[in-house]
Amino acid sequence: MSYSHYSTGNTTSPSAPPVPENQSQPGVGYPYQRPPQSQQSNYNYNYGQPQNPTSAGGYGSQYGYAPPTPSFPPGTHPEIIRNFQMVDSDRSGFIDAKELQRALSSGYQQFSLRTIRLLIFQFGNPADPHRIGPKEFSELWNCLGQWRAIFERFDRDRSGKIDAAELRDALYSLGYAIPPTVLQLLIAKYDDQSGRRPDLSFDSFVECGMIVKGLTEKFKEKDTRYTGSATLSYETFMTMVIPFLAAE
Amino acid sequence: MSYSHYSTGNTTSPSAPPVPENQSQPGVGYPYQRPPQSQQSNYNYNYGQPQNPTSAGGYGSQYGYAPPTPSFPPGTHPEIIRNFQMVDSDRSGFIDAKELQRALSSGYQQFSLRTIRLLIFQFGNPADPHRIGPKEFSELWNCLGQWRAIFERFDRDRSGKIDAAELRDALYSLGYAIPPTVLQLLIAKYDDQSGRRPDLSFDSFVECGMIVKGLTEKFKEKDTRYTGSATLSYETFMTMVIPFLAAE
Repeated sequence: MSYSHYSTGNTTSPSAPPVPENQSQPGVGYPYQRPPQSQQSNYNYNYGQPQNPTSAGGYGSQYGYAPPTPSFPPGTHPEIIRNFQMVDSDRSGFIDAKELQRALSSGYQQFSLRTIRLLIFQFGNPADPHRIGPKEFSELWNCLGQWRAIFERFDRDRSGKIDAAELRDALYSLGYAIPPTVLQLLIAKYDDQSGRRPDLSFDSFVECGMIVKGLTEKFKEKDTRYTGSATLSYETFMTMVIPFLAAE
Repeated sequence: MSYSHYSTGNTTSPSAPPVPENQSQPGVGYPYQRPPQSQQSNYNYNYGQPQNPTSAGGYGSQYGYAPPTPSFPPGTHPEIIRNFQMVDSDRSGFIDAKELQRALSSGYQQFSLRTIRLLIFQFGNPADPHRIGPKEFSELWNCLGQWRAIFERFDRDRSGKIDAAELRDALYSLGYAIPPTVLQLLIAKYDDQSGRRPDLSFDSFVECGMIVKGLTEKFKEKDTRYTGSATLSYETFMTMVIPFLAAE
């Protein structure tokens, strides 16, 4: 089964050059990214799970073949399929932002449309930026499960909220070591001017995480030698950044 | 009169090094920015108007002086003062996003909160990112007047909407020559999947314009020799970009 609508490498295969599994990079100079780990290129998506054997299938099928009806990869958990089908009422095989919001929401977990759009942007197909299919939904679901586990680990008092230091540690657990200035900018967004220390719900944590993950991956694509800096043309800079703004 | 809360040079004086008036730069290599014009550093704000004589007054007052109650620069149009005071009901001298939305809205002109937050981010004080005072409001008002005139010039059929090519030309009139790839990313956001060509209201035009203006100015700060490219560390890149996401 192949997915011709899904050929940009934006989901299971991050668009940054993947680090070969188990190959350590001596002297990695990337100051704010943790050293590569085994399975790093899939670390954030399929934590602890084998890589989806169909995930590379779409690459060869983008030239001239009619796209097959999208379906779930073999072995997808029935709960994921049920949740997708529950909101895909016209059985089109695709769900949009509002449908995704319904599919992911429960009493325990609510997502703003803004976070939902960032998720679609991060996991979906840039050429079809308003909806996702079963494969992307499944990957997104698994990623959120992993992020939920990390959020709960750092939400020690089970308040449903984490503070700035816990956000930093949670992002570090996900593989992102962000500088204090960046942490401060992220957290400032949740400052409600009450004088209390800002804290983040799971929704906000996912929003922050998607911003950090997305921008870091984009930057790494341009920093091919892992030096921690990159030379960007004006056009490159603008095209790297605008999709994040446009996604919201 | 000085404004100690207003010392970052983020409004009338763009944070990029200003180009001296009437000094042409031979061989400017900036591929996507129009060649500097006289008054370029204020071109986007005070089109055709003399520079506000008080606008540099805040710079000297940031050390140790108590901030004076914010007030309007001398010569501010009474309509601007009236609109500000109408929404600043507690006379605090500051208005927040919802108040700004009310102050700027009329039957003719409505702004989304998203655009309003981008305006506050662009014109306000980064250290106080949720509200603006009279001086910033006045600058913002004048800028919107200029942008409205340009929007109307390109909205030839008076439909209240402009298309992609008109957006490109309107941004060019404001001093921003954006590459086709960037235009495409900007306009994709307004594609409603109906198959019709996306078009932009004045609200969306301002939103796009603030994104282009803000990111271009940030980039130019790092491209001090106007070569059209800049070398950025990961931290610099992240701190340049995240405020645009956080502002929304």
